[in-house]
Amino acid sequence: MKSFVFALFAFSTVLFAQDPLPSWKEGNVKSQLLDFINAAQDTSSDGFIAVEDRIAVFDNDGTLWSEQPMYFQMFYAADRLKKMAESDASLKQEQPYKAVVEGDHEAIKSFGEKEILQVVLKSHAGMSTEQFEADVAEWMKTAKHPGKGMRFVDMTYTPMKELIDALHAAEFKCYIVSGGGLSFMRPWVEEAYNIPRHRVIGSRIEVEYEVKDGTPQLTRKAEIGFIDDKGGKPVGIYQVIGRRPAAAFGNSDGDFQMLEYTTAGKGARLGALVHHTDAEREWAYDRDSHVGHLVRGLDEAKERGWILIDMKKDWATVFGE
Amino acid sequence: MKSFVFALFAFSTVLFAQDPLPSWKEGNVKSQLLDFINAAQDTSSDGFIAVEDRIAVFDNDGTLWSEQPMYFQMFYAADRLKKMAESDASLKQEQPYKAVVEGDHEAIKSFGEKEILQVVLKSHAGMSTEQFEADVAEWMKTAKHPGKGMRFVDMTYTPMKELIDALHAAEFKCYIVSGGGLSFMRPWVEEAYNIPRHRVIGSRIEVEYEVKDGTPQLTRKAEIGFIDDKGGKPVGIYQVIGRRPAAAFGNSDGDFQMLEYTTAGKGARLGALVHHTDAEREWAYDRDSHVGHLVRGLDEAKERGWILIDMKKDWATVFGE
Repeated sequence: MKSFVFALFAFSTVLFAQDPLPSWKEGNVKSQLLDFINAAQDTSSDGFIAVEDRIAVFDNDGTLWSEQPMYFQMFYAADRLKKMAESDASLKQEQPYKAVVEGDHEAIKSFGEKEILQVVLKSHAGMSTEQFEADVAEWMKTAKHPGKGMRFVDMTYTPMKELIDALHAAEFKCYIVSGGGLSFMRPWVEEAYNIPRHRVIGSRIEVEYEVKDGTPQLTRKAEIGFIDDKGGKPVGIYQVIGRRPAAAFGNSDGDFQMLEYTTAGKGARLGALVHHTDAEREWAYDRDSHVGHLVRGLDEAKERGWILIDMKKDWATVFGE
Repeated sequence: MKSFVFALFAFSTVLFAQDPLPSWKEGNVKSQLLDFINAAQDTSSDGFIAVEDRIAVFDNDGTLWSEQPMYFQMFYAADRLKKMAESDASLKQEQPYKAVVEGDHEAIKSFGEKEILQVVLKSHAGMSTEQFEADVAEWMKTAKHPGKGMRFVDMTYTPMKELIDALHAAEFKCYIVSGGGLSFMRPWVEEAYNIPRHRVIGSRIEVEYEVKDGTPQLTRKAEIGFIDDKGGKPVGIYQVIGRRPAAAFGNSDGDFQMLEYTTAGKGARLGALVHHTDAEREWAYDRDSHVGHLVRGLDEAKERGWILIDMKKDWATVFGE
């Protein structure tokens, strides 16, 4: 017995010479995450996962960065619409654009999917993908959250970034699978999360290939191409990855099907939901929230064996120092 | 000068201790391919390419394997329809299915895009993606080309596989970007070309997430989702890769936009078309062919600086020994 315990100890110290998750408080959640990662690399374990199947998928809004009081992409859309309104007065009169241009956050919070799509299509189309991504990259450098006064890119979660690093160290490929826009995420996720741009799956507006003034480009059209949410998430995973992930991380019922699909696979699987319980350091919301609506996930997590990450209890820090 | 020549020589011998393209005959085409690959890794060269931009895209039908007398996927569709016709007699009466079930190759060769899509949708839908891919994998093991008597997987081009290996050795990521079906290619391309399944971009029928008899699955619907051909190829590249490739390989006008988009980028670029000139070892066709139709590519290759790979002249072997 003694030698078995010693072997176990030696094993985990070899894999992780230092604590790979210093921003996670010691406890059941942290242990389960580390056990999953350790076992995945241990050929003698039931939890071993072949390298090609070491795929982890992460929702973005509310899972890797904040999403209150509205999706951060809406702040970008608002800033673009305001700029567009300088030369297009109709945007100051017509809803739902008027509310956005005026910064009427109460009205924006009441937007349904239809209004959100209208605002996104109006503000995100009519240019090449390269122009759009350059604009997002520029905006991201300085844009700040109105309530917190922090840059949006600094409102990414340190504990989740450590988790991505730990998964990478164990030869997992980490993908973002988000309802957010593909081209809205690609310009900054590599620096923020160490996830390369070809491992981003997101909602897409239609793009069309054309040669404009002699230059081939992909032009963004004001049409929805693909909504990467709910049942769309496993579909996006099919389109881009072509394998069932071994681990899935989300925070809302928009991630339910992704976790369900992931954890229904054979062998070692991990599903986890970030539960927003920290009104002081971040926000506390779940069942009644207009963003990050979480009901079914809370009700069924236990029976499905999914981990509930309690932000307040499990995270030593949210955004780092 | 002497030391410069010596340095060059030393350089290329370090990169390629052995000829990485033994199935290519010595000549201008082989030199251009090797020069591009060598320069991409040489920080002192104008042809240097940053590792993250070392992306090469390959059409499949007619570029990595044969496509005569019809796309090989149509042989699979035919075999499936024949099996389906055993329990669904209508397929023996109704066109275009009747022609396929009866193996009427002349009729099949006259199919337009509409008939091809009808046959694909009828034969490729109504099951889970996993079932479909397992069926393709099983078929691929033994299915043979009626004219050549070779297995379809053995009708992949040895020179192109060497090129993929040489690009991999130079840290390129190689993707397939094909009008063929995504799930038709994924099961076998990894073994055939050493290209992993997440680096396949193809045409897609719609898939829908559903929980069937308690099991989450992706069900294939009889609806077109995406056609990865012509202007669709740069769009598929946008959706999955998110970077402009440095090199593109095709063989027909369906690849024109992919080569145009690729070679319009800044820095070192390479575009190449496999020209089917070898009626003896493979097939000879271009302008008048119903598959692999090549007109604009032939007319404009020279002014655009694209390489024409003359199968007869440039390849020492087509399918290997």
